[in-house]
Amino acid sequence: MATATLVPACQSSGLASTAAGTCTGNRRVAAVPPAVASCARIGNLSCCCLGSSSVSFLRGGAARILVGHGAVDSSSSSRPSIGLCTPRAQVSKTLTQDELKKIAADKAVEYVQSGMVLGLGTGSTAAFAVAKIGELLKEGTLKDIIGVPTSKRTAEQAAALGIPLSVLDDHPKIDLAIDGADEVDPDLNLVKGRGGALLREKMVEAASAKFVVIVDETKLVNGLGGSGLAMPVEVVQFCWKYNAERLKTLPEVAGCEVQLRMDGDKPYVTDNSNYIIDLYFKDPIKDAKAAAKAISSLEGVVDHGLFLDMATAVIIAGSDGVTVQSKKL
Amino acid sequence: MATATLVPACQSSGLASTAAGTCTGNRRVAAVPPAVASCARIGNLSCCCLGSSSVSFLRGGAARILVGHGAVDSSSSSRPSIGLCTPRAQVSKTLTQDELKKIAADKAVEYVQSGMVLGLGTGSTAAFAVAKIGELLKEGTLKDIIGVPTSKRTAEQAAALGIPLSVLDDHPKIDLAIDGADEVDPDLNLVKGRGGALLREKMVEAASAKFVVIVDETKLVNGLGGSGLAMPVEVVQFCWKYNAERLKTLPEVAGCEVQLRMDGDKPYVTDNSNYIIDLYFKDPIKDAKAAAKAISSLEGVVDHGLFLDMATAVIIAGSDGVTVQSKKL
Repeated sequence: MATATLVPACQSSGLASTAAGTCTGNRRVAAVPPAVASCARIGNLSCCCLGSSSVSFLRGGAARILVGHGAVDSSSSSRPSIGLCTPRAQVSKTLTQDELKKIAADKAVEYVQSGMVLGLGTGSTAAFAVAKIGELLKEGTLKDIIGVPTSKRTAEQAAALGIPLSVLDDHPKIDLAIDGADEVDPDLNLVKGRGGALLREKMVEAASAKFVVIVDETKLVNGLGGSGLAMPVEVVQFCWKYNAERLKTLPEVAGCEVQLRMDGDKPYVTDNSNYIIDLYFKDPIKDAKAAAKAISSLEGVVDHGLFLDMATAVIIAGSDGVTVQSKKL
Repeated sequence: MATATLVPACQSSGLASTAAGTCTGNRRVAAVPPAVASCARIGNLSCCCLGSSSVSFLRGGAARILVGHGAVDSSSSSRPSIGLCTPRAQVSKTLTQDELKKIAADKAVEYVQSGMVLGLGTGSTAAFAVAKIGELLKEGTLKDIIGVPTSKRTAEQAAALGIPLSVLDDHPKIDLAIDGADEVDPDLNLVKGRGGALLREKMVEAASAKFVVIVDETKLVNGLGGSGLAMPVEVVQFCWKYNAERLKTLPEVAGCEVQLRMDGDKPYVTDNSNYIIDLYFKDPIKDAKAAAKAISSLEGVVDHGLFLDMATAVIIAGSDGVTVQSKKL
């Protein structure tokens, strides 16, 4: 197992002020340019490497840097007790999926600062982040946090943890949202909404200055739809079959199968009293932006699970550690 | 009062096969080119004149031809008993608004042929059309009609009249829709939805090969929003205030006032369990297409009352008679 080693450059507060450093203890670093194997910008993505155990490249110029936890790419955090770029412990390969998710969630919470309005995501990984925020509030490390939940379930969890809650009506500008995703492509575009909360998630996350996504590495795809699992479209109940047929025949999602999401023997109903039509793809969507536009253009479509150009960072929990990919942070 | 006189050219089945004729009995026809004062195409609009009592031009090349009823512009109707271009009675200036609406509705029904699937609109004028269709079915003039209603109210009316009903799920392709509108601009773009059924209306009418609109002349505007009355936007209930604020600050609808539609002391709830935010404009919307796109792009907006490039003909009931404007019929 490689030893997690701190890159000196990353001890400063962020990319903007760092000079290129070197990663030691990397296992597969040979093919990686020196500037990448530290803190660097690659195309429109920026990556920070700390205690990496492996570095690999994704298509489109994005770099994946697997790191022992303690590493994060940020130019804004100044919270001392959860300092950035501080290696703490090596990630063991025997960690469970939940433990990895927790590590990723804790990493995401390092972006949180006192006084922030936070979008609180939904799902098993996001729940770890909410729990961590609650813990930090309780111990006094974080103060004056306001949470805007993306589901009733998250609202209940956050309320139980003592996190003050609000809604977009009262807090239309969110500093940071943390949420899971169902798929992440190399450009950090997402499929979300398999949990059924896609519209509220999209509203909250579109209102966020920064949106940090937490996933496990099984969610990485070469192209959206590539997992073969559901890409949800929220539609009004009125004539849903008509819209299902229309969705099926859109050239932009050619070849997809459509299926009304069920809840037992009845259609699943969203918090907004709508239905969800799940689209299943054999091959990744060729042009996700065109698909999103075509789907949105259908009367009766309320929203869809394509979250494009929204994520500012994606934190990926994998068997080898945690990856941070970012665009703008 | 001018005498309604048949233009011979219009006795044929439609514009495509007609030669220019002349209108006699027109009161203010002097400024109108001869070709217009019969059946002609003007820009992308086509107009047919029968028993006109006045002819005037709207901006953008559209012609308004006020006619005694019996005139309609169509190339498809062949129903003998409600022949097109057949002057029947002169329009008296003492006719009530309802009588004028009925004349316009009857005119719209002349487009209906046996075997058609019809989109049935909602509102006081559309109700006259539904009544007429029921009457023609009962007397056997029309047969094998299937109606796709745009509201529960219309469904109830049509069912009571014995009109067989269906839904888009079972009849996704509609031959002809007839409905009212709240505003009509010179390019036959519409504002609809003050009755609250905008989404279902848009779904049905977008599925229609031809869409005939019936209005009284008070609905004519130089630009959409120009009436100063509501332009409705259907939004999910979740964080409607947030969306109301966002709508208000969209540059494409700059200067509008926003208001949640109420039903007594509670918010009005649509058939789709959504709210309606009404937009009120002091001046007409400068670029309706840009406004429609911007409004639709907001997460949580389900649809809006801008019906652009959808109407194929508009039949206008006025104090002087009935006007037919068409694009593609």
